[in-house]
Parts: sequence; C-alpha cells; structure tokens
Amino acid sequence: MADPIIREALVSALRKILDAQFILSTQEQLKPFECDGLSVYKALPMVAVLPGSVGEVQEIVRLCHRLKVPLVTRGAGTGLSAGAKPDPDGLLLVMTRLSNILDINSATQTARLQPGVRNLAISEAVKQHGLFYAPDPSSQIACSIGGNIAENAGGVHCLKYGLTVHNVLQVSGFTMAGDPITIGNGGLDNAGLNLLPLIIGSEGMLMVVTEITVKLLPLPNQVEVILAAFDSIEKAGQAVSNIIAQGVIPGGLEMMDNNAIRAAEDDAQAGYPRDAAAILLIEIDGSPVNVSEQLQSTHKVLQDSGVSSVKIAKTDAEKALFWKGRKSAFPAVGRLSPDYYCMDGTIPRKSLAEVLGYIHTLSEQYGFPVANVFHAGDGNLHPLILFDANQPGQLESVEAMGAKILEKCIEVGGTITGEHGVGLEKIRQMPLQFSDEEINQFHGIKAALDPDNLLNPGKNIPLLKHCQEYRALAKNLRPNQLLIQHEATA
Amino acid sequence: MADPIIREALVSALRKILDAQFILSTQEQLKPFECDGLSVYKALPMVAVLPGSVGEVQEIVRLCHRLKVPLVTRGAGTGLSAGAKPDPDGLLLVMTRLSNILDINSATQTARLQPGVRNLAISEAVKQHGLFYAPDPSSQIACSIGGNIAENAGGVHCLKYGLTVHNVLQVSGFTMAGDPITIGNGGLDNAGLNLLPLIIGSEGMLMVVTEITVKLLPLPNQVEVILAAFDSIEKAGQAVSNIIAQGVIPGGLEMMDNNAIRAAEDDAQAGYPRDAAAILLIEIDGSPVNVSEQLQSTHKVLQDSGVSSVKIAKTDAEKALFWKGRKSAFPAVGRLSPDYYCMDGTIPRKSLAEVLGYIHTLSEQYGFPVANVFHAGDGNLHPLILFDANQPGQLESVEAMGAKILEKCIEVGGTITGEHGVGLEKIRQMPLQFSDEEINQFHGIKAALDPDNLLNPGKNIPLLKHCQEYRALAKNLRPNQLLIQHEATA
Repeated sequence: MADPIIREALVSALRKILDAQFILSTQEQLKPFECDGLSVYKALPMVAVLPGSVGEVQEIVRLCHRLKVPLVTRGAGTGLSAGAKPDPDGLLLVMTRLSNILDINSATQTARLQPGVRNLAISEAVKQHGLFYAPDPSSQIACSIGGNIAENAGGVHCLKYGLTVHNVLQVSGFTMAGDPITIGNGGLDNAGLNLLPLIIGSEGMLMVVTEITVKLLPLPNQVEVILAAFDSIEKAGQAVSNIIAQGVIPGGLEMMDNNAIRAAEDDAQAGYPRDAAAILLIEIDGSPVNVSEQLQSTHKVLQDSGVSSVKIAKTDAEKALFWKGRKSAFPAVGRLSPDYYCMDGTIPRKSLAEVLGYIHTLSEQYGFPVANVFHAGDGNLHPLILFDANQPGQLESVEAMGAKILEKCIEVGGTITGEHGVGLEKIRQMPLQFSDEEINQFHGIKAALDPDNLLNPGKNIPLLKHCQEYRALAKNLRPNQLLIQHEATA
Repeated sequence: MADPIIREALVSALRKILDAQFILSTQEQLKPFECDGLSVYKALPMVAVLPGSVGEVQEIVRLCHRLKVPLVTRGAGTGLSAGAKPDPDGLLLVMTRLSNILDINSATQTARLQPGVRNLAISEAVKQHGLFYAPDPSSQIACSIGGNIAENAGGVHCLKYGLTVHNVLQVSGFTMAGDPITIGNGGLDNAGLNLLPLIIGSEGMLMVVTEITVKLLPLPNQVEVILAAFDSIEKAGQAVSNIIAQGVIPGGLEMMDNNAIRAAEDDAQAGYPRDAAAILLIEIDGSPVNVSEQLQSTHKVLQDSGVSSVKIAKTDAEKALFWKGRKSAFPAVGRLSPDYYCMDGTIPRKSLAEVLGYIHTLSEQYGFPVANVFHAGDGNLHPLILFDANQPGQLESVEAMGAKILEKCIEVGGTITGEHGVGLEKIRQMPLQFSDEEINQFHGIKAALDPDNLLNPGKNIPLLKHCQEYRALAKNLRPNQLLIQHEATA
C-alpha cells in the first residue's frame, strides 16, 4: 500500500484540479477498480480519479509527472489480460466520464470520439448515416474505444475488417510530461516514423489518449449466416482454409468445438447440432448480388470439404439465433463449471488441428475440461479452461496449463495474443516469443516516449533481468506450480 | 570525400568478407551509385558493396558498426525522395544481388523474398497460382521489394489494397550491431510493441532488411476500366467522393488534368478527350457478377456527378490502352519540356479543388507549367512541374515552388508524403508537419534501435537544431532562393 503521507499530498494537489467527488482514495471507494476483467490480478491504486475534461487530464498527467507517480489509464475495465490492473503506488486515471461523441462526418466516413465512448455506442450513433464501426469485441456493449486502443481489440468481424489498429486514423492526447501530441493523419502514408500502430496495442504505456478519430464503413446491404457442422475438427479446419483460399473473405468465420456447442445449445437453443465435433458459423455480407454469389461458392466449398450438414438462416430471427449461440458461448460455459479461464492466442490456420489436439492432451493431463471457441478465419484461438477457483491449487494449475497453450502457439509460428493483449497475464511468455535484444528494443522505444517509466509500468514488456528466469520456468513447469506474480512489484 | 587512409582500411577489411569484384571504391565504379531517382541530390559514397549472401551482409554491418562507418542501404535506386543518396563518409550497401524468391506458399498466400527481388517479379512468379502482389509503384518493373519497404511504396491499386505497410507480414535482418532480428508474425495482432509498421517506411534508418514475407492476393476474375471525362476539376473531384461514399472501392481511381491528358494522348493515343478539364480512370475488379453490379452503380454516380462523357473499355486491348495513357503520363510530360519535377503529397479528398487551384496560382506566379496526375481515391497528388534545368536558377525556383505545394498539403490537413517518402527532398517540411516534441520522439525511437546513428543518417528526420530555421525559411521563401542542402553534412 502507498504511504499515507504521499497519498494525502497527492489528494490535496488533485483537489485543485478536479471536484472532490471524482477523487477516490478510501479502500471502499477504490475496491471497484482493483482489477479489470482478469480478476486474478488485483491491487488497490493509491488514488483513482475520474476527470471530466481534457484539460483536467492534462493537469493530472502533469502532476503525476512532477511527483513521479506511476499512472495507469483505465477504460471500462473489461480487458482480459490485466492491462489495467492498478499500480499500488500509482494513480488510476479512469476515462469513463470522457464519453462524448465529438463529431460524426458521414462525407469522410469518420467519427471523432472521447476515449470513454462505448464501442457499441459508435455503431448505434452512426447507423442513421448507413455506417458502422467494424471492430466488435464480445464486450462491445460495455468496453470503451480508449480501452480498445490500449489492447488493439478485435472481434467477430476482424478477419474481413481488421483489428482496432486497422480502423483508427488518428489519436490525440498527452505525453507523460503533459505535452499535447497528435499521432496519425487521414492519409495512408505517414511522414517521419509511423507511430500510430505503435500506440495502438501499447497498453497505455506510451501516451495518454484523450481523442480518437475512427474510420466508419458503409453497413452491408445484405447479410447471410451459414451454420455448417463437421464430424471432425480437422475437416472443419480444412474447410476454413478452403473458403479463404478461394478468395472469399467472410464478414465472420467462427468455429466452436463440441464442448462449446453443447454449452451454447443448452443456454441459447440456437439450433446447433449437439453431436457435431465442430461447427462453423459463416457470415457473408455485401450487396445482394455479391452475397448470393458468395453464398453459392461457399456452399460448394463446404460440400467439397466433407461437411456433415449445412443450414442457411432463412429469416432475420434465425440469423440472430445462430449468432446468439456463439455470443452466449462464454457465459454458457460458465454453467458447466464455477469458473473458466479464457485464453487468447493466434496460430497459422494450417496448425489448427495440431494445436487443438495438443489442448486436448493438456486437458486430460491437467484434468480440466476445455471448450474451444475460435475466430477461425484469422487463427485466433479462445480455449476456455473450466475449473473451480474455490478448490485449492486449481487456479495455479489452470494458469500453468494456459501457459503451455501460449507456448504451443509460439512453437507453431503464432503469437501469444490475438486481441486481448499481453498485460500481466502473458508477460512470462514474452521472452519465449522475443529475444533479449528485441525486448531491449521495446524498452528503448518506451524510454523514448516515457523516459521515467511512469506510464503503466511493469505491463506488456518484461524486465530483462526476469527474461532468463521466465524461459527456464517455461521449460520446467509442472502442474500446480505457483505462477501468478506481479512483475511491477517483483 | 572520405579520407583515402580510412577508405583503404575499410576496403582491406571488406576483402576478407566478399570477393573484390563486389567492392567498389574508385570514382568510375561509384559514379552509377551517386544518386537515386531524385538526381539533384548526389554524392559518391566512400565505398559501395554488393553482397551475395545474408552472411556477408551481417559481416559488413558488423564491420561498419565496429568502425563507426555510416551505412546507407540501396535497392534498385528508383526512389524519388533521395532516401538512398549515399553518405560521402559512409558505405553504400547495394542489395541487388540478393534477388532470390525463397518460397511461394499458395496455401497461406504468402511469399518469402530477398530484398533485391523486383516488385513486378513477385506478381510474375505467383501468377501461376492465381495470385498477385498488390502494391504496384510506377517503377515496378525495376524497383525492389527492399526499397518498397524503405519508402512504404504505393501504386495505382493502393486505395483498395493498401500500401506496402498493409501487404508485408514479416521482415528479418540485422540491427546496426549485426544482431539478427525478426519483426512481425503472420497474425493480425502482435505481442509487445508493434514494430513492423515502424520499420516499413523508415528509409533504412532502423535496421538492415535481408528477408521479407509478403501477403499475396487472389487475382480478380474480372476487371473493367471506365474512362470518365469532366468539364471541371471540381466535378471530377466530387465524383471521386461520390463513388467512394456509395461504398464501392475501385481497384484503381486515377485523375489527370488537361495538361496531363494532352501529354499522354500525344504520346500514347489512348483515346482520351483532349479538351476535357479532367478525366477519371476507374478500374473495377472482382468476380463477374460483382463487377457488373459495381459497374452499373458507378455509372449512375458518374451521371449524377455531371460527367461529360463515359467510355467503358470493350476489349482487353482497349483496357490496356486506357491504362497505357496513364502509365505513359510521366515520360509523356517529358516531351513537353526538358525536365520535370514529380511532387508527392496527400490531401483530404474534399480539398482537391482548393489545392489544385493553389497549384495553378503557383504555376502562374513562378512561370512553370504543371501537369497533374493523382491517385485520386486516396488523395495522393503527383503534380509534375515542367522546367529546364539548364536555365540557371530554374531548378532552385522549382524546388521553392514544390516546397510551397507540400506546405499547402499540410495546411489543408494532409501530409507531405503519399508514397515516395521524405528522404532528403522533404526534410525541410518535416518541422511544418511535426512539433519539436514529435521530432524529438522520432530521434528517441531511432536511438533505441540505432544508438550510434549510423543507419542512413540525416534522412527523414531533421536535426532539432535545424527545425526553427526550416520553419522560418517556409515563411519567408521567395522564388529563386537556393534550397537544396544536405542535412547530413549541414
């Protein structure tokens, strides 16, 4: 815990910047902010503030810089890698009150937003202009565009439309010194060094973002949804490759295994075949004639790939129902066991069957059932490991099993994140994917933008002195070995 | 010129690395490498080498690092911003011999390439698999993929398919210390900081690239080309916005003004209307049914935008002829005057008419005719300023006029590069687009990857001490003022 003298001094100084009701410093006040969506990592911040204007943000950042107080920025707190876990000696900057849509320009198909705007609120606001904002994480009803930028959020439609990094044109905000900075421009090319993709996904470690310009897309005229069932994971995986190989990029291309199918079907009665080894949900969007052509060719590819059954949703209600099953898969899996741990990694599509086989082996070895839900088109895995956190040792064992899955992702040439970021969750796997030299370059770049290491310290990039240790750990890991540790305080 | 003693020492050490015939050190040998495609900036390097293997590259880089010799990497030398201008005290690393296509994977739709592979050679090699590599700069017959990465090259199709940065999945090579480094992975998301877009377009200032993995796309089944003529630039500009607003992203969307039309028509007899104020060339690609639908809707938008005449190419020969005119525009303009200076900048589409009006005013004020050729869809301008370099003072005056055009691009919210990069050409405009703080961050990031500032020093990012001076210069610039200066040696 932070020293009360320091905390008091900070709170006094903050009271000159913003109204006392927006400065939280007691344990009761801070408790709701102790973690993000990955609740195994938690800490109370020294103080939390909820600024109501960009000017207040600037003064808060300057104050932290002056007093050398670490600053962690938080959006809606729905992140799944502990990227927004508070620093016990730091200030938590909560952006939820900065939630104005500043401008919608239907001619340039862009919107200017404050960071606290909810993801779904963007598409709702621009719908009247026939537009939408493409990245749609599962948490889109709650998560904020600022948090989406921090973690480079994805969603069901990112195979066709890209992640956050592909849909943001500009960000403005402040350096840790409190100086205003604008990064990116409307054009495709960028003079100097291209910092925008560096900021997006940097987990609040390079700047504080207070304004975002996003790209909007025309709503497709027509959408069709196909439900395809397979008697083996391999066939389903091959069908995914075949669909993409023929040049059709579906709006969504999701895969669920039998555990996930049954959980979703119990919960949503979506009409999924309970005995299928795997299903694909394929959404095709575009103009009517375009969609009808793609529907035909996709149907043919599915037949050639050995599909067991194909259903094409006939009504809007049926389309919604097919998706309801997928969207309820995570909470539905919650009915199977008291807790689940949602992993996130990306692999080459060709390795799908191999990695699923490996996960199955781990599942038997560790004794935890796994339900698999994928963004199959882009190789983004979400194994859900089912366990009971109240049983001593289970959480640690699940974490060890999760680490093994991430290491397998690296082994087959993939990466340890698909759309959830690294945060604290995956920091131990960073030295498996990157050499000391590469980790050192990350630190160098962070130092160029945040020389005092005050912005969200200890996340995303492991300290070099820990890298060897993490590599050794990965080699020798056994079930039940305690793994959760906080790099920032290590 | 470099000190002969140093040069001799370097040459001796290089002879232990590669065969003497690939080490160039006399004036006669070095002359062909004194400049890239922007020949007003030139210098002989101390020495030039043409390595034949990745191992040789590593040893050369290590030698330069050890002796603290600046290193400029050169591809095919077709760049248009002097990014590959040699350093008179440095080594020029010429990558043309590293020109192997290492692997073509039609299943993953990727190719692994050495940096010296010519851009067009990629599409030629993968055509048999029904694939192509999308970025297609005008110089594609000669330019190399390594140089494309250095300058983030674009082309006619980048509105739909993106620039180099959107089509490269991974690069490998060496840090200036000679350590191997691999950046990027096949996935959409990236753990740690996303360095790949930082490397692409960084003009050889952050690493030496020896291997590239590019994304390939399925060749479209059908391509149609529309030639649309307008009696005013404004109407043509509005038509471009209207086409994009309806959700159709053409494969190519080019605009030419009357000077460019007449030059191209004289040269290529492409069937362009000689009296039009502007023409649009619109290429629509995709599946047959998709193309036919887009052709109809685009035709309607053109009518609604006040088009004077529309021709749709009926045969493959006519399609090729329509494009021949556009592709010959640059050399054709060369028939109008002894020399031309090709500018490159990007503006928001809505500012097209305003910026063209300003260029017209400058043309009258400075007394140089201008032919305008645009990648209209993405707002990328290429004004060609016509002059005679043999007339004393003309080159300097043209440079001053070009600077004014770039400054106008910044003023309307655009950027000083579209696809040619900054190099030395536009380094004076960098402080107009970026604050000292931002320039300083660029230097910080460069220092994180190249602490001794040996990789292509003096390009792209101006020294802070010069920034105020360049800003003052921009304010007070008059015709005929001498501008060409070499930041590296200033």
